[in-house]
Amino acid sequence: MFAPAYLDHNATTPVLPAVLEAMLPFFGQQFGNASSRHEYGRAARRAVDEARQQVAEAVGAHPTEVVFTSGGSEANNLFLKGAAACLKAGLVAVSAVEHPSVREPARDLQRSGWTLREIAVDGEGRVDAADYAEVIARRPGLVSVMLANNETGVLQDIGQLAGMAAGACFHADAVQALGKVAVDFRALNARGVHALSLSAHKIGGPKGAGALVVDKGIELKPLISGGGHERGLRSGTENVPAIVGFGVACRLAVSGLAEDAERLGRLRDLLERGLAEQGASIFGAAARRLPNTVYFALSGIDGETLVSKLDRAGFAVASGAACSSANPEASRVLTAMGVAPELARGAVRVSLGAETTMEQIEDFMAALAATVSQLRGLAALAA
Amino acid sequence: MFAPAYLDHNATTPVLPAVLEAMLPFFGQQFGNASSRHEYGRAARRAVDEARQQVAEAVGAHPTEVVFTSGGSEANNLFLKGAAACLKAGLVAVSAVEHPSVREPARDLQRSGWTLREIAVDGEGRVDAADYAEVIARRPGLVSVMLANNETGVLQDIGQLAGMAAGACFHADAVQALGKVAVDFRALNARGVHALSLSAHKIGGPKGAGALVVDKGIELKPLISGGGHERGLRSGTENVPAIVGFGVACRLAVSGLAEDAERLGRLRDLLERGLAEQGASIFGAAARRLPNTVYFALSGIDGETLVSKLDRAGFAVASGAACSSANPEASRVLTAMGVAPELARGAVRVSLGAETTMEQIEDFMAALAATVSQLRGLAALAA
Repeated sequence: MFAPAYLDHNATTPVLPAVLEAMLPFFGQQFGNASSRHEYGRAARRAVDEARQQVAEAVGAHPTEVVFTSGGSEANNLFLKGAAACLKAGLVAVSAVEHPSVREPARDLQRSGWTLREIAVDGEGRVDAADYAEVIARRPGLVSVMLANNETGVLQDIGQLAGMAAGACFHADAVQALGKVAVDFRALNARGVHALSLSAHKIGGPKGAGALVVDKGIELKPLISGGGHERGLRSGTENVPAIVGFGVACRLAVSGLAEDAERLGRLRDLLERGLAEQGASIFGAAARRLPNTVYFALSGIDGETLVSKLDRAGFAVASGAACSSANPEASRVLTAMGVAPELARGAVRVSLGAETTMEQIEDFMAALAATVSQLRGLAALAA
Repeated sequence: MFAPAYLDHNATTPVLPAVLEAMLPFFGQQFGNASSRHEYGRAARRAVDEARQQVAEAVGAHPTEVVFTSGGSEANNLFLKGAAACLKAGLVAVSAVEHPSVREPARDLQRSGWTLREIAVDGEGRVDAADYAEVIARRPGLVSVMLANNETGVLQDIGQLAGMAAGACFHADAVQALGKVAVDFRALNARGVHALSLSAHKIGGPKGAGALVVDKGIELKPLISGGGHERGLRSGTENVPAIVGFGVACRLAVSGLAEDAERLGRLRDLLERGLAEQGASIFGAAARRLPNTVYFALSGIDGETLVSKLDRAGFAVASGAACSSANPEASRVLTAMGVAPELARGAVRVSLGAETTMEQIEDFMAALAATVSQLRGLAALAA
């Protein structure tokens, strides 16, 4: 049984005990297909309906605005490709720090006749106001800017950005924001945000469930067509246990949000003070950020090497974005922020979560100091 | 706690205890993101790799030919839309009895410049040889014919059909066949079948996992792009617990296949003899069929009404296809087979599974006889 300290919650989170408990009956007992017209089917349908209500409530949406998907990547693809398929090809604008599941669909649109424009960010990872104004002046048909960045945790003022983009279909990837900061679709929608992507496994829910919360005035072509599930927007037998878990995870994430955010923020500040003492650069430090995310580099220390040493020392952290960890390129997010390649190669992300303790943070700082001094000693020896 | 007799296994199945047991550690303990480069991530990756091996072995494929998806509908969409996107628009041919998750993508292709041709079936639901020859003579670019039909259980000779379709990308929806009859991708591939769709939840595995087993010579454009998971063919954090469950379910389905098929076939035969005594028409009775599926109608008895009465009597069965049960139209499958609308409206599907007992079948026949006599009595009274 391995149990290193898990400090990589932006990659994924453990399923909360209460979430798993809620899911369990739907595997072997109430296992019906929610489309079946018998008691097993109706029980499954009731469970999906209740979860839809919970997800909607967590983000201030109406249940009919929630389209369940297999996760955040599918939700992002569904919006970008699905909305584009119902529009005349035009300009699609996405921020330069989007997750690959927004960036790649935007490139797919480019290959099918759309013009792709990346929106620049400043040195702290915030959308650059001047560049954004320039993009908007060209009247994009589609705009996608994330609520919170997966690497830096930097928050964008989506409401304000959407307010400037009248006439565009405006989407925000809210996968990293959900459960860490308040997300209010009704308020955002009033300012011009048409859709949000959500994922269960980033908030103590299971992998395999996510949602696109979408204004019903937006026409979408489904990615997955067939039996007509989810108002025809996403066919396929509903993943009932995962959807149930997603609902409960949403309820829990929102009910304890303020308290958790404050607690995580304190741990994060402690960690950042320790890092500052070791001379670390903290990316996006001057921007509004998620309370749980620290993204840093120590000059002369390679991020991959550090993550690997820390792993052996019993600490699970990430270098670069979780989803492209298999890819040794420097982080595109940091490159877009204008971070020098030498420093970007040192990037390490620590992301805290519900079960993170003060003791883990203290132990992590001690292990980091020891590892860094060992690596610097080796470097001095080799010099 | 409700526990009606569940006789609707073609819609979905209960997750087997051994499958759930294998999945459990991956929710709260080994919960890593398989792309993460620390011990949690590596443990998840090993689990996904092992499951890929198990799925591949179950269908005689190589693990590198297995692309995990969120289920069968996604696998069907991935092949049809993904292969079409890499081909010049031409003729797409699908049998007239395909699942909606094949039929609808084929219609989507039609809307994007392809010519759609449905392949006729005979009165037993088998692909009509003369019509198929005519279709093939027109050199389709894409062909999709299912291995086993979800409503009737009728099997198609996919190897033979693919052998005639040289030059076409040939896909078979094997969702209903898996675990009920032997499926050998290596042998089918040698005869010209390029891809098979599979689903976990039809074989005692969890909802939320499926696969496209695909010849690596076939170029596919992903539906969901992003982080580049599954060799770039399906981005999104792997649903590790569901994939693990899918692997174990495949192993169990194949190891007990011959025995289970014989046992279910005996129960099915018993049921069909009972139905024959009540004057039922059994659809596809003269065709090779899955051992677990009985699709019948009793003249003058409405299928929806019968299913609803049986539900109240404690028996879960289906009318029409599971995925379109919410839709009161007559079954397209039966219409394609030339079944008269009056008879088609009476269609009821009973599909047996691992936990089905002889006693359930006997009780079901008694309940059916009582219900039918009650309905006929009411009809006589009203006449």
